[in-house]
Amino acid sequence: MPARDKLTTPRDVRNACRSGELKEHTSGLAQGFAQANLVILPLDDAVDFRQFCELNPKPCPLLEVTEPGCHSLNRLATDADLRTDLPMYRVWRDGELVEEVTDITTLWRDDLVSFLIGCSFTFEAALAEHGVTVRHVELGRNVPMFRTSLECKAVGKFHGPLVVSMRPLRPAQAILAIQITSQFPDVHGVPIHIGLPREIGIDDLQRPDFGEAVPIEADELPVFWACGVTPQAALMAAKPKFAITHSPGCMFVSDLKDDSLRRVEPF
Amino acid sequence: MPARDKLTTPRDVRNACRSGELKEHTSGLAQGFAQANLVILPLDDAVDFRQFCELNPKPCPLLEVTEPGCHSLNRLATDADLRTDLPMYRVWRDGELVEEVTDITTLWRDDLVSFLIGCSFTFEAALAEHGVTVRHVELGRNVPMFRTSLECKAVGKFHGPLVVSMRPLRPAQAILAIQITSQFPDVHGVPIHIGLPREIGIDDLQRPDFGEAVPIEADELPVFWACGVTPQAALMAAKPKFAITHSPGCMFVSDLKDDSLRRVEPF
Repeated sequence: MPARDKLTTPRDVRNACRSGELKEHTSGLAQGFAQANLVILPLDDAVDFRQFCELNPKPCPLLEVTEPGCHSLNRLATDADLRTDLPMYRVWRDGELVEEVTDITTLWRDDLVSFLIGCSFTFEAALAEHGVTVRHVELGRNVPMFRTSLECKAVGKFHGPLVVSMRPLRPAQAILAIQITSQFPDVHGVPIHIGLPREIGIDDLQRPDFGEAVPIEADELPVFWACGVTPQAALMAAKPKFAITHSPGCMFVSDLKDDSLRRVEPF
Repeated sequence: MPARDKLTTPRDVRNACRSGELKEHTSGLAQGFAQANLVILPLDDAVDFRQFCELNPKPCPLLEVTEPGCHSLNRLATDADLRTDLPMYRVWRDGELVEEVTDITTLWRDDLVSFLIGCSFTFEAALAEHGVTVRHVELGRNVPMFRTSLECKAVGKFHGPLVVSMRPLRPAQAILAIQITSQFPDVHGVPIHIGLPREIGIDDLQRPDFGEAVPIEADELPVFWACGVTPQAALMAAKPKFAITHSPGCMFVSDLKDDSLRRVEPF
Protein backbone atom coordinates (compact mmCIF):
# COMPACT_ATOMS: atom_id res chain seq x y z
CA MET A 1 0.00 0.00 0.00
CA PRO A 2 1.09 3.64 -0.38
CA ALA A 3 2.74 5.23 2.67
CA ARG A 4 -0.02 6.74 4.84
CA ASP A 5 1.69 10.13 4.84
CA LYS A 6 1.37 10.23 1.05
CA LEU A 7 -2.44 10.12 1.35
CA THR A 8 -2.91 13.84 1.87
CA THR A 9 -6.00 14.57 -0.22
CA PRO A 10 -9.44 12.94 0.07
CA ARG A 11 -9.06 11.75 -3.53
CA ASP A 12 -5.71 10.08 -2.67
CA VAL A 13 -7.46 8.16 0.10
CA ARG A 14 -10.51 7.19 -1.98
CA ASN A 15 -8.31 6.08 -4.89
CA ALA A 16 -6.19 3.96 -2.54
CA CYS A 17 -9.40 2.34 -1.27
CA ARG A 18 -10.75 1.84 -4.79
CA SER A 19 -7.55 0.13 -5.95
CA GLY A 20 -7.62 -2.11 -2.86
CA GLU A 21 -4.34 -0.73 -1.55
CA LEU A 22 -5.79 0.87 1.61
CA LYS A 23 -7.58 -1.63 3.84
CA GLU A 24 -7.11 -0.04 7.26
CA HIS A 25 -8.36 2.85 9.37
CA THR A 26 -8.48 6.38 7.98
CA SER A 27 -7.59 8.25 11.19
CA GLY A 28 -5.08 10.99 10.42
CA LEU A 29 -5.40 10.67 6.63
CA ALA A 30 -6.24 13.70 4.41
CA GLN A 31 -6.03 15.99 7.43
CA GLY A 32 -8.39 18.94 7.39
CA PHE A 33 -11.13 17.06 5.54
CA ALA A 34 -14.28 15.68 7.14
CA GLN A 35 -14.71 11.93 7.44
CA ALA A 36 -18.10 10.24 7.70
CA ASN A 37 -19.73 7.11 9.10
CA LEU A 38 -21.59 5.02 6.48
CA VAL A 39 -24.84 3.05 6.88
CA ILE A 40 -26.46 1.41 3.85
CA LEU A 41 -29.98 -0.01 4.05
CA PRO A 42 -32.66 -1.20 1.62
CA LEU A 43 -35.34 1.42 0.97
CA ASP A 44 -37.90 -0.42 3.13
CA ASP A 45 -35.79 0.14 6.24
CA ALA A 46 -34.18 3.36 5.05
CA VAL A 47 -37.36 5.40 5.52
CA ASP A 48 -37.55 4.62 9.23
CA PHE A 49 -33.79 4.86 9.69
CA ARG A 50 -33.76 8.33 8.15
CA GLN A 51 -36.43 9.46 10.59
CA PHE A 52 -34.49 7.83 13.45
CA CYS A 53 -31.46 9.93 12.51
CA GLU A 54 -33.53 13.08 12.15
CA LEU A 55 -35.06 12.62 15.61
CA ASN A 56 -31.66 11.88 17.17
CA PRO A 57 -29.42 14.44 15.48
CA LYS A 58 -26.77 14.61 18.24
CA PRO A 59 -25.58 11.00 17.76
CA CYS A 60 -26.74 10.70 14.12
CA PRO A 61 -26.00 13.96 12.28
CA LEU A 62 -26.86 13.33 8.62
CA LEU A 63 -24.33 14.89 6.26
CA GLU A 64 -25.84 13.34 3.10
CA VAL A 65 -28.44 10.73 2.16
CA THR A 66 -28.48 9.21 -1.36
CA GLU A 67 -31.37 8.38 -3.65
CA PRO A 68 -32.17 4.63 -3.74
CA GLY A 69 -29.66 2.73 -5.87
CA CYS A 70 -27.34 5.72 -6.24
CA HIS A 71 -23.77 5.04 -5.16
CA SER A 72 -22.40 8.50 -5.88
CA LEU A 73 -22.66 11.67 -3.81
CA ASN A 74 -23.42 15.36 -4.37
CA ARG A 75 -22.39 17.23 -1.23
CA LEU A 76 -19.52 15.25 0.24
CA ALA A 77 -17.68 14.50 -3.02
CA THR A 78 -18.53 14.51 -6.72
CA ASP A 79 -16.31 11.68 -7.98
CA ALA A 80 -16.87 9.15 -5.20
CA ASP A 81 -18.17 5.60 -5.54
CA LEU A 82 -19.59 4.39 -2.23
CA ARG A 83 -19.16 0.75 -3.36
CA THR A 84 -15.37 0.95 -3.46
CA ASP A 85 -14.12 4.14 -1.79
CA LEU A 86 -13.97 3.03 1.85
CA PRO A 87 -11.10 0.81 3.11
CA MET A 88 -13.32 -1.87 4.61
CA TYR A 89 -17.05 -2.63 4.90
CA ARG A 90 -19.10 -4.78 7.24
CA VAL A 91 -21.99 -6.77 5.79
CA TRP A 92 -24.89 -7.54 8.13
CA ARG A 93 -27.74 -10.06 7.62
CA ASP A 94 -30.57 -10.31 10.16
CA GLY A 95 -28.52 -8.19 12.55
CA GLU A 96 -25.49 -10.50 12.42
CA LEU A 97 -22.11 -9.51 11.02
CA VAL A 98 -21.54 -12.00 8.20
CA GLU A 99 -18.46 -10.70 6.43
CA GLU A 100 -15.94 -7.88 6.16
CA VAL A 101 -14.98 -6.88 2.60
CA THR A 102 -13.05 -4.15 0.78
CA ASP A 103 -15.54 -3.77 -2.08
CA ILE A 104 -19.35 -4.06 -2.12
CA THR A 105 -19.87 -3.82 -5.89
CA THR A 106 -21.15 -7.39 -6.16
CA LEU A 107 -23.54 -6.81 -3.24
CA TRP A 108 -25.04 -3.65 -4.72
CA ARG A 109 -28.80 -3.41 -5.25
CA ASP A 110 -31.09 -0.84 -6.83
CA ASP A 111 -32.96 -0.26 -3.58
CA LEU A 112 -29.96 0.58 -1.38
CA VAL A 113 -29.92 3.97 0.34
CA SER A 114 -26.65 5.30 1.81
CA PHE A 115 -26.45 7.47 4.93
CA LEU A 116 -23.31 9.52 5.53
CA ILE A 117 -23.18 10.52 9.21
CA GLY A 118 -20.85 13.10 10.80
CA CYS A 119 -17.80 11.85 12.69
CA SER A 120 -15.92 13.20 15.71
CA PHE A 121 -12.59 13.28 13.83
CA THR A 122 -13.67 16.73 12.62
CA PHE A 123 -14.04 18.25 16.07
CA GLU A 124 -10.93 16.45 17.33
CA ALA A 125 -8.97 18.28 14.64
CA ALA A 126 -10.44 21.58 15.86
CA LEU A 127 -9.62 20.68 19.47
CA ALA A 128 -6.01 19.92 18.51
CA GLU A 129 -5.75 23.27 16.69
CA HIS A 130 -6.62 24.96 19.99
CA GLY A 131 -4.11 22.91 21.96
CA VAL A 132 -6.68 20.59 23.54
CA THR A 133 -4.97 17.21 23.37
CA VAL A 134 -7.10 14.09 23.43
CA ARG A 135 -5.86 11.14 25.49
CA HIS A 136 -6.77 8.28 23.11
CA VAL A 137 -5.05 10.05 20.20
CA GLU A 138 -1.92 10.62 22.33
CA LEU A 139 -1.93 6.93 23.23
CA GLY A 140 -2.73 5.74 19.68
CA ARG A 141 -5.91 4.00 20.88
CA ASN A 142 -9.50 3.93 19.68
CA VAL A 143 -11.70 6.31 21.70
CA PRO A 144 -13.50 4.67 24.66
CA MET A 145 -17.26 4.43 24.07
CA PHE A 146 -20.10 3.59 26.47
CA ARG A 147 -23.77 2.66 26.24
CA THR A 148 -25.71 5.10 28.43
CA SER A 149 -29.01 4.86 30.29
CA LEU A 150 -30.37 7.54 27.92
CA GLU A 151 -32.65 6.08 25.24
CA CYS A 152 -32.76 7.39 21.69
CA LYS A 153 -36.15 8.32 20.29
CA ALA A 154 -37.36 5.11 18.60
CA VAL A 155 -38.74 4.91 15.05
CA GLY A 156 -40.23 1.55 13.99
CA LYS A 157 -37.70 -1.15 14.74
CA PHE A 158 -34.87 1.34 15.22
CA HIS A 159 -34.20 2.00 18.89
CA GLY A 160 -31.47 1.70 21.46
CA PRO A 161 -29.30 3.56 23.94
CA LEU A 162 -27.40 6.72 23.24
CA VAL A 163 -23.78 5.65 22.88
CA VAL A 164 -21.19 8.22 23.97
CA SER A 165 -17.46 8.66 23.47
CA MET A 166 -15.42 9.82 26.48
CA ARG A 167 -12.42 12.14 26.57
CA PRO A 168 -10.77 13.04 29.91
CA LEU A 169 -9.92 16.74 30.12
CA ARG A 170 -8.78 19.19 32.74
CA PRO A 171 -11.68 21.54 33.65
CA ALA A 172 -10.38 24.59 31.77
CA GLN A 173 -9.75 22.41 28.69
CA ALA A 174 -13.23 20.90 29.04
CA ILE A 175 -14.77 24.38 29.00
CA LEU A 176 -12.75 25.30 25.90
CA ALA A 177 -13.72 22.00 24.28
CA ILE A 178 -17.39 22.81 24.88
CA GLN A 179 -16.89 26.19 23.22
CA ILE A 180 -15.12 24.62 20.24
CA THR A 181 -17.51 21.73 19.69
CA SER A 182 -20.50 24.08 19.96
CA GLN A 183 -19.35 25.29 16.54
CA PHE A 184 -19.65 21.80 15.04
CA PRO A 185 -23.30 20.76 15.47
CA ASP A 186 -23.07 18.49 12.40
CA VAL A 187 -20.39 16.36 14.02
CA HIS A 188 -22.07 15.73 17.39
CA GLY A 189 -21.73 19.31 18.71
CA VAL A 190 -21.33 19.99 22.42
CA PRO A 191 -20.91 17.18 24.95
CA ILE A 192 -24.08 15.65 26.38
CA HIS A 193 -22.52 15.15 29.83
CA ILE A 194 -19.55 16.01 31.99
CA GLY A 195 -18.18 14.79 35.27
CA LEU A 196 -20.81 12.49 36.82
CA PRO A 197 -20.85 9.26 34.73
CA ARG A 198 -23.25 7.36 37.05
CA GLU A 199 -25.91 9.94 36.23
CA ILE A 200 -25.98 8.57 32.67
CA GLY A 201 -25.68 4.93 33.64
CA ILE A 202 -21.91 4.45 33.32
CA ASP A 203 -20.49 2.60 36.34
CA ASP A 204 -16.90 1.90 35.31
CA LEU A 205 -14.96 4.24 33.05
CA GLN A 206 -12.21 1.63 32.70
CA ARG A 207 -14.60 -0.84 31.04
CA PRO A 208 -15.88 0.77 27.84
CA ASP A 209 -18.50 -1.04 25.74
CA PHE A 210 -16.63 -0.20 22.53
CA GLY A 211 -13.10 1.04 21.80
CA GLU A 212 -10.33 1.03 24.39
CA ALA A 213 -10.01 2.35 27.95
CA VAL A 214 -7.77 5.35 28.67
CA PRO A 215 -6.46 6.56 32.05
CA ILE A 216 -8.12 9.55 33.76
CA GLU A 217 -5.93 11.72 36.00
CA ALA A 218 -7.04 13.19 39.34
CA ASP A 219 -7.16 16.71 37.88
CA GLU A 220 -9.39 15.68 34.97
CA LEU A 221 -13.12 15.25 34.37
CA PRO A 222 -14.59 12.71 31.95
CA VAL A 223 -16.40 14.55 29.12
CA PHE A 224 -19.00 12.66 27.08
CA TRP A 225 -20.04 13.33 23.48
CA ALA A 226 -22.87 11.67 21.53
CA CYS A 227 -21.19 9.07 19.33
CA GLY A 228 -21.62 7.83 15.77
CA VAL A 229 -21.68 4.26 17.07
CA THR A 230 -25.23 5.00 18.27
CA PRO A 231 -26.77 4.34 14.81
CA GLN A 232 -24.80 1.09 14.56
CA ALA A 233 -26.17 0.04 17.98
CA ALA A 234 -29.68 0.87 16.74
CA LEU A 235 -28.98 -1.22 13.64
CA MET A 236 -27.87 -4.16 15.77
CA ALA A 237 -31.05 -3.81 17.85
CA ALA A 238 -33.29 -3.54 14.77
CA LYS A 239 -31.76 -6.58 13.02
CA PRO A 240 -32.71 -5.58 9.47
CA LYS A 241 -32.51 -8.34 6.86
CA PHE A 242 -29.62 -6.62 5.10
CA ALA A 243 -27.29 -3.74 5.90
CA ILE A 244 -23.79 -2.57 5.11
CA THR A 245 -21.70 -0.25 7.28
CA HIS A 246 -18.11 0.94 7.30
CA SER A 247 -15.75 -1.14 9.45
CA PRO A 248 -14.73 0.60 12.71
CA GLY A 249 -12.36 3.48 11.95
CA CYS A 250 -12.55 2.86 8.19
CA MET A 251 -14.48 5.99 7.32
CA PHE A 252 -15.55 7.68 4.11
CA VAL A 253 -13.14 10.57 3.49
CA SER A 254 -15.06 13.50 1.99
CA ASP A 255 -14.03 16.60 0.06
CA LEU A 256 -15.69 18.80 2.70
CA LYS A 257 -13.19 20.80 4.70
CA ASP A 258 -13.58 20.27 8.45
CA ASP A 259 -13.88 24.03 8.74
CA SER A 260 -16.88 24.11 6.39
CA LEU A 261 -18.83 22.23 9.08
CA ARG A 262 -18.24 25.08 11.54
CA ARG A 263 -21.44 27.03 12.19
CA VAL A 264 -23.39 28.62 14.98
CA GLU A 265 -25.57 26.05 16.69
CA PRO A 266 -29.00 27.17 17.84
CA PHE A 267 -29.70 26.29 21.47
CA MET B 1 -39.43 54.50 48.26
CA PRO B 2 -41.27 53.54 45.07
CA ALA B 3 -42.35 49.90 44.80
CA ARG B 4 -39.48 47.90 43.27
CA ASP B 5 -41.75 46.54 40.55
CA LYS B 6 -42.43 50.12 39.39
CA LEU B 7 -38.71 50.57 38.59
CA THR B 8 -38.86 49.00 35.14
CA THR B 9 -36.58 51.28 33.11
CA PRO B 10 -32.94 52.16 33.82
CA ARG B 11 -33.96 55.81 34.09
CA ASP B 12 -36.58 54.92 36.73
CA VAL B 13 -33.87 53.25 38.80
CA ARG B 14 -31.33 56.03 38.36
CA ASN B 15 -33.91 58.71 39.22
CA ALA B 16 -34.93 56.79 42.34
CA CYS B 17 -31.25 56.69 43.34
CA ARG B 18 -30.76 60.36 42.54
CA SER B 19 -33.75 61.40 44.66
CA GLY B 20 -32.47 59.24 47.52
CA GLU B 21 -35.53 56.97 47.44
CA LEU B 22 -33.67 53.80 46.39
CA LYS B 23 -30.93 52.84 48.84
CA GLU B 24 -30.83 49.06 48.38
CA HIS B 25 -29.67 46.43 45.91
CA THR B 26 -30.59 46.62 42.23
CA SER B 27 -30.98 42.90 41.56
CA GLY B 28 -34.10 42.31 39.45
CA LEU B 29 -34.69 46.00 38.68
CA ALA B 30 -35.02 47.27 35.07
CA GLN B 31 -34.93 43.73 33.78
CA GLY B 32 -33.28 43.27 30.41
CA PHE B 33 -30.76 46.06 30.98
CA ALA B 34 -27.11 45.58 31.87
CA GLN B 35 -25.90 46.54 35.32
CA ALA B 36 -22.29 47.45 36.09
CA ASN B 37 -19.78 47.42 38.93
CA LEU B 38 -18.26 50.84 39.72
CA VAL B 39 -14.71 51.66 40.80
CA ILE B 40 -13.61 55.32 41.12
CA LEU B 41 -9.93 56.21 41.59
CA PRO B 42 -7.77 59.34 41.36
CA LEU B 43 -5.90 59.61 38.05
CA ASP B 44 -2.56 58.64 39.66
CA ASP B 45 -3.89 55.19 40.51
CA ALA B 46 -6.34 55.00 37.63
CA VAL B 47 -3.62 54.50 35.03
CA ASP B 48 -2.35 51.31 36.68
CA PHE B 49 -5.86 50.12 37.55
CA ARG B 50 -6.94 50.48 33.93
CA GLN B 51 -4.02 48.33 32.82
CA PHE B 52 -4.83 45.83 35.58
CA CYS B 53 -8.36 45.50 34.18
CA GLU B 54 -7.10 45.23 30.59
CA LEU B 55 -4.68 42.43 31.55
CA ASN B 56 -7.38 40.60 33.54
CA PRO B 57 -10.42 40.97 31.30
CA LYS B 58 -12.28 37.87 32.55
CA PRO B 59 -12.83 39.22 36.09
CA CYS B 60 -12.57 42.92 35.11
CA PRO B 61 -14.37 43.48 31.78
CA LEU B 62 -14.35 47.23 31.20
CA LEU B 63 -17.64 48.49 29.78
CA GLU B 64 -16.70 52.18 29.99
CA VAL B 65 -13.96 54.36 31.51
CA THR B 66 -14.51 58.11 31.98
CA GLU B 67 -12.17 61.02 31.42
CA PRO B 68 -10.71 62.42 34.68
CA GLY B 69 -13.25 64.55 36.54
CA CYS B 70 -16.13 63.53 34.26
CA HIS B 71 -19.12 62.08 36.10
CA SER B 72 -21.27 61.45 33.05
CA LEU B 73 -21.12 58.56 30.58
CA ASN B 74 -21.24 58.09 26.82
CA ARG B 75 -21.78 54.40 26.15
CA LEU B 76 -23.78 53.12 29.11
CA ALA B 77 -26.19 56.05 29.42
CA THR B 78 -26.32 59.65 28.24
CA ASP B 79 -28.18 61.30 31.13
CA ALA B 80 -26.47 59.60 34.06
CA ASP B 81 -24.63 61.25 36.94
CA LEU B 82 -22.23 58.81 38.56
CA ARG B 83 -22.21 60.91 41.77
CA THR B 84 -25.87 60.24 42.53
CA ASP B 85 -27.25 57.48 40.33
CA LEU B 86 -26.26 54.39 42.34
CA PRO B 87 -28.23 53.38 45.47
CA MET B 88 -25.22 53.23 47.78
CA TYR B 89 -21.47 53.87 47.60
CA ARG B 90 -18.53 52.72 49.67
CA VAL B 91 -15.75 55.22 50.40
CA TRP B 92 -12.27 53.82 50.99
CA ARG B 93 -9.22 55.60 52.45
CA ASP B 94 -5.84 53.82 52.60
CA GLY B 95 -7.60 50.56 51.78
CA GLU B 96 -10.06 50.83 54.68
CA LEU B 97 -13.80 51.22 54.28
CA VAL B 98 -14.57 54.51 56.00
CA GLU B 99 -18.19 55.20 55.13
CA GLU B 100 -21.18 54.13 53.10
CA VAL B 101 -23.18 56.96 51.48
CA THR B 102 -25.99 57.46 48.98
CA ASP B 103 -24.42 60.46 47.24
CA ILE B 104 -20.77 61.27 46.52
CA THR B 105 -21.26 64.81 45.17
CA THR B 106 -19.42 66.41 48.08
CA LEU B 107 -16.55 63.93 47.69
CA TRP B 108 -16.10 64.60 43.97
CA ARG B 109 -12.70 65.72 42.64
CA ASP B 110 -11.44 66.81 39.24
CA ASP B 111 -8.96 63.93 39.06
CA LEU B 112 -11.42 61.08 39.63
CA VAL B 113 -11.70 58.41 36.93
CA SER B 114 -14.69 56.04 36.92
CA PHE B 115 -14.51 52.41 35.79
CA LEU B 116 -17.73 50.64 34.83
CA ILE B 117 -17.15 46.88 34.91
CA GLY B 118 -19.46 44.18 33.53
CA CYS B 119 -21.65 42.24 35.96
CA SER B 120 -22.93 38.66 35.97
CA PHE B 121 -26.57 39.77 36.27
CA THR B 122 -26.52 40.02 32.46
CA PHE B 123 -25.60 36.41 31.84
CA GLU B 124 -27.89 35.21 34.64
CA ALA B 125 -30.78 36.79 32.73
CA ALA B 126 -29.71 34.89 29.60
CA LEU B 127 -29.40 31.65 31.60
CA ALA B 128 -32.91 32.13 32.97
CA GLU B 129 -34.26 32.72 29.45
CA HIS B 130 -32.92 29.28 28.51
CA GLY B 131 -34.42 27.62 31.57
CA VAL B 132 -31.15 27.34 33.49
CA THR B 133 -32.16 28.23 37.02
CA VAL B 134 -29.53 29.54 39.40
CA ARG B 135 -29.63 28.31 43.01
CA HIS B 136 -28.82 31.59 44.80
CA VAL B 137 -31.53 33.43 42.85
CA GLU B 138 -34.06 30.69 43.67
CA LEU B 139 -33.13 31.00 47.35
CA GLY B 140 -33.03 34.82 47.32
CA ARG B 141 -29.39 34.84 48.43
CA ASN B 142 -26.26 36.65 47.26
CA VAL B 143 -24.11 34.44 45.00
CA PRO B 144 -21.35 32.51 46.86
CA MET B 145 -17.89 33.84 45.96
CA PHE B 146 -14.45 32.40 46.65
CA ARG B 147 -10.83 33.59 46.50
CA THR B 148 -8.91 31.12 44.31
CA SER B 149 -5.25 30.10 44.17
CA LEU B 150 -5.08 31.70 40.72
CA GLU B 151 -3.30 35.05 40.78
CA CYS B 152 -4.33 37.98 38.60
CA LYS B 153 -1.64 39.60 36.50
CA ALA B 154 -0.30 42.40 38.72
CA VAL B 155 0.16 46.03 37.62
CA GLY B 156 1.98 48.32 40.07
CA LYS B 157 0.30 48.00 43.44
CA PHE B 158 -2.76 46.28 41.99
CA HIS B 159 -2.61 42.53 42.50
CA GLY B 160 -4.51 39.73 44.17
CA PRO B 161 -6.31 36.45 43.64
CA LEU B 162 -8.91 35.77 41.01
CA VAL B 163 -12.25 35.77 42.85
CA VAL B 164 -14.93 33.48 41.40
CA SER B 165 -18.67 33.12 41.81
CA MET B 166 -20.07 29.58 42.04
CA ARG B 167 -23.32 28.22 40.67
CA PRO B 168 -24.22 24.52 41.13
CA LEU B 169 -25.67 23.02 37.94
CA ARG B 170 -26.57 19.59 36.62
CA PRO B 171 -24.03 18.56 33.93
CA ALA B 172 -26.32 19.13 30.93
CA GLN B 173 -27.28 22.55 32.34
CA ALA B 174 -23.61 23.34 32.94
CA ILE B 175 -22.82 22.59 29.29
CA LEU B 176 -25.70 24.81 28.14
CA ALA B 177 -24.57 27.53 30.57
CA ILE B 178 -21.08 27.40 29.02
CA GLN B 179 -22.61 27.81 25.57
CA ILE B 180 -24.75 30.75 26.71
CA THR B 181 -22.06 32.59 28.65
CA SER B 182 -19.59 32.17 25.78
CA GLN B 183 -21.78 34.77 24.06
CA PHE B 184 -21.20 37.31 26.84
CA PRO B 185 -17.44 37.90 26.98
CA ASP B 186 -18.00 41.43 28.36
CA VAL B 187 -19.73 40.09 31.44
CA HIS B 188 -17.16 37.45 32.48
CA GLY B 189 -17.84 35.06 29.57
CA VAL B 190 -17.42 31.30 30.00
CA PRO B 191 -16.64 29.75 33.38
CA ILE B 192 -12.98 29.47 34.38
CA HIS B 193 -13.49 26.14 36.13
CA ILE B 194 -15.93 23.29 36.66
CA GLY B 195 -16.17 20.35 38.98
CA LEU B 196 -12.86 20.14 40.88
CA PRO B 197 -12.72 23.09 43.32
CA ARG B 198 -9.50 21.95 45.08
CA GLU B 199 -7.67 22.41 41.78
CA ILE B 200 -8.25 26.17 42.12
CA GLY B 201 -7.59 26.33 45.85
CA ILE B 202 -11.16 26.07 47.16
CA ASP B 203 -11.40 23.57 50.03
CA ASP B 204 -14.92 24.08 51.35
CA LEU B 205 -17.78 25.09 49.07
CA GLN B 206 -19.97 25.72 52.12
CA ARG B 207 -17.65 28.48 53.37
CA PRO B 208 -17.56 31.21 50.71
CA ASP B 209 -15.25 34.21 51.17
CA PHE B 210 -17.99 36.60 50.02
CA GLY B 211 -21.76 36.22 49.58
CA GLU B 212 -23.75 33.32 50.97
CA ALA B 213 -23.41 29.52 50.76
CA VAL B 214 -25.91 27.49 48.72
CA PRO B 215 -26.54 23.73 48.80
CA ILE B 216 -25.09 21.53 46.05
CA GLU B 217 -27.02 18.36 45.16
CA ALA B 218 -25.40 14.99 44.38
CA ASP B 219 -26.33 15.27 40.68
CA GLU B 220 -24.75 18.73 40.33
CA LEU B 221 -21.29 20.11 39.61
CA PRO B 222 -20.01 23.42 40.98
CA VAL B 223 -19.37 25.82 38.08
CA PHE B 224 -17.07 28.80 38.64
CA TRP B 225 -17.11 32.15 36.83
CA ALA B 226 -14.59 34.99 37.13
CA CYS B 227 -16.23 37.54 39.40
CA GLY B 228 -16.49 41.34 39.52
CA VAL B 229 -15.42 41.24 43.18
CA THR B 230 -11.88 40.55 41.88
CA PRO B 231 -11.14 44.25 41.18
CA GLN B 232 -12.45 45.13 44.66
CA ALA B 233 -10.09 42.53 46.17
CA ALA B 234 -7.23 44.07 44.16
CA LEU B 235 -8.25 47.46 45.48
CA MET B 236 -8.21 46.19 49.07
CA ALA B 237 -4.73 44.73 48.46
CA ALA B 238 -3.43 47.93 46.80
CA LYS B 239 -4.73 50.23 49.58
CA PRO B 240 -4.90 53.39 47.46
CA LYS B 241 -5.22 56.64 49.41
CA PHE B 242 -8.73 57.22 48.10
CA ALA B 243 -11.30 55.15 46.24
CA ILE B 244 -15.03 54.87 45.85
CA THR B 245 -16.93 51.74 44.80
CA HIS B 246 -20.56 50.71 44.63
CA SER B 247 -21.86 48.93 47.72
CA PRO B 248 -22.35 45.18 47.22
CA GLY B 249 -25.35 44.53 44.96
CA CYS B 250 -26.01 48.27 44.53
CA MET B 251 -24.99 48.47 40.87
CA PHE B 252 -25.11 51.13 38.19
CA VAL B 253 -28.11 50.37 35.95
CA SER B 254 -27.24 51.19 32.34
CA ASP B 255 -29.29 51.85 29.23
CA LEU B 256 -27.48 49.00 27.44
CA LYS B 257 -29.72 46.06 26.74
CA ASP B 258 -28.33 42.79 28.11
CA ASP B 259 -28.71 41.42 24.59
CA SER B 260 -26.45 44.14 23.15
CA LEU B 261 -23.57 42.57 25.09
CA ARG B 262 -24.06 39.30 23.22
CA ARG B 263 -21.24 38.70 20.74
CA VAL B 264 -19.01 35.94 19.48
CA GLU B 265 -16.01 35.54 21.77
CA PRO B 266 -12.71 34.78 20.11
CA PHE B 267 -10.92 31.83 21.70
